[in-house]
Amino acid sequence: MITVAYDGTDYHGWQFQEGVPTIEGALSARLLDLTGEECSLTGASRTDAGVHALGNVAVFDTESRIPAEKFPGALNARLPGEIRVLKGQEVDADFHPRHCHSVKTYEYRILNSRSEDPLRSRYVHWYYGALDTERMREAAAVLIGEHDFTSFCSVHAQSETRVRTICSLDVLTEAAGEEGKEIVLRITGNGFLYNMVRIIAGTLIDVGRGQTAAGAMEGILLGKDRALAGPTAPAKGLTLKKIAFPDGLRPDRPEREQD
Amino acid sequence: MITVAYDGTDYHGWQFQEGVPTIEGALSARLLDLTGEECSLTGASRTDAGVHALGNVAVFDTESRIPAEKFPGALNARLPGEIRVLKGQEVDADFHPRHCHSVKTYEYRILNSRSEDPLRSRYVHWYYGALDTERMREAAAVLIGEHDFTSFCSVHAQSETRVRTICSLDVLTEAAGEEGKEIVLRITGNGFLYNMVRIIAGTLIDVGRGQTAAGAMEGILLGKDRALAGPTAPAKGLTLKKIAFPDGLRPDRPEREQD
Repeated sequence: MITVAYDGTDYHGWQFQEGVPTIEGALSARLLDLTGEECSLTGASRTDAGVHALGNVAVFDTESRIPAEKFPGALNARLPGEIRVLKGQEVDADFHPRHCHSVKTYEYRILNSRSEDPLRSRYVHWYYGALDTERMREAAAVLIGEHDFTSFCSVHAQSETRVRTICSLDVLTEAAGEEGKEIVLRITGNGFLYNMVRIIAGTLIDVGRGQTAAGAMEGILLGKDRALAGPTAPAKGLTLKKIAFPDGLRPDRPEREQD
Repeated sequence: MITVAYDGTDYHGWQFQEGVPTIEGALSARLLDLTGEECSLTGASRTDAGVHALGNVAVFDTESRIPAEKFPGALNARLPGEIRVLKGQEVDADFHPRHCHSVKTYEYRILNSRSEDPLRSRYVHWYYGALDTERMREAAAVLIGEHDFTSFCSVHAQSETRVRTICSLDVLTEAAGEEGKEIVLRITGNGFLYNMVRIIAGTLIDVGRGQTAAGAMEGILLGKDRALAGPTAPAKGLTLKKIAFPDGLRPDRPEREQD
């Protein structure tokens, strides 16, 4: 199992597609160089085009004698700088990163400032107008817990059930330059439907700018209708921060060796 | 006068060069589209290839009737996203942004973490090993004030005098992910020699990792010999944050209109 960080700007998402750059495609090609095997990768999160990750994970089988902890260095030497393998570890042969009780943390970043910022723009959604973070917090609180998230799910999603649990959904602010701020939506849950975080972000932006009342969030959730929620916010603002696995298997970040 | 922010990663620096992308070249081409004139731009800081800016400024003459404050919107509609014009304002015809008593603020960012971070790597210099920021602060303090900075200046510099004043040089730390930190060298002064901030950064990194003693900084400064100082740190970690002009002319950031 490898833990992978990437800048998704120039990639057509995680999943392999013939003829276009994808994260899975880049990793598979480098694994072939390294091991001589066509390793089939299974990613924990098949992130969309333009979405970033600091701690996605993927598993693969290999006959290679290279120790698991040597894979990051060997792969990074061959990968473009936008993709970094942070950790390699052996896992049980039957471990499947999507069929287990993991908890994922995503962040959606909104740059709320008068001017765009070229040093942030790959990783944030720029929104010029005023956003009321108190109203956004009030609306966000409605979504915490186990719910049917059909309203916050792309109509193209293929999941059998739309019930998921959001463990936390925080609306944080950070200073950004001299005149702006970043609003960070930090969301933790046991699984997310297709486009779910981006639709939640788009709906919370509508609440923040006064287009939707905070008190309307409950009706949007209970209505189980995608048309009730706000737009899908742009992919560039979304980053998969980490995936925490049960049973002490925590491949989210490397252990610290020093400092 | 326009105030300009840019991600310098894919540009060969500020100054126009035939056949390669430069910040000045991109701005001049868009000014030609907009005004029909070949506007000659004078930049306050001719940043090097790969160096970023949040508040560089440039002046140009034009016969255009477009009001100064309309230039940012009109230029941004035509510019690539890595370059944003933040402000436009009229200045006296004899105003020259390099021949006046401005104060510039630069930041040099060092990502000090076990792993590289693809979401920071365009804007930081990654350094894996331990860095002692207390020693770096002790060495940095030696450079504050008016000095001959020949030791911290490229041998290719063409300035007549190597005397400059550093007003402040702070060594700050910010958390970066779960296991790392960014060390930010924030330096303010009345002018900087060619490569001066990057050579100061390279020397402070040598101090931080124990290669150079903090107490050696005074000898390096007084020796007036480039060979005494450390290496030129990579361009990608350097950002021109702002330029403060005297006489109330402060084009560093747009005024806030709301919030």
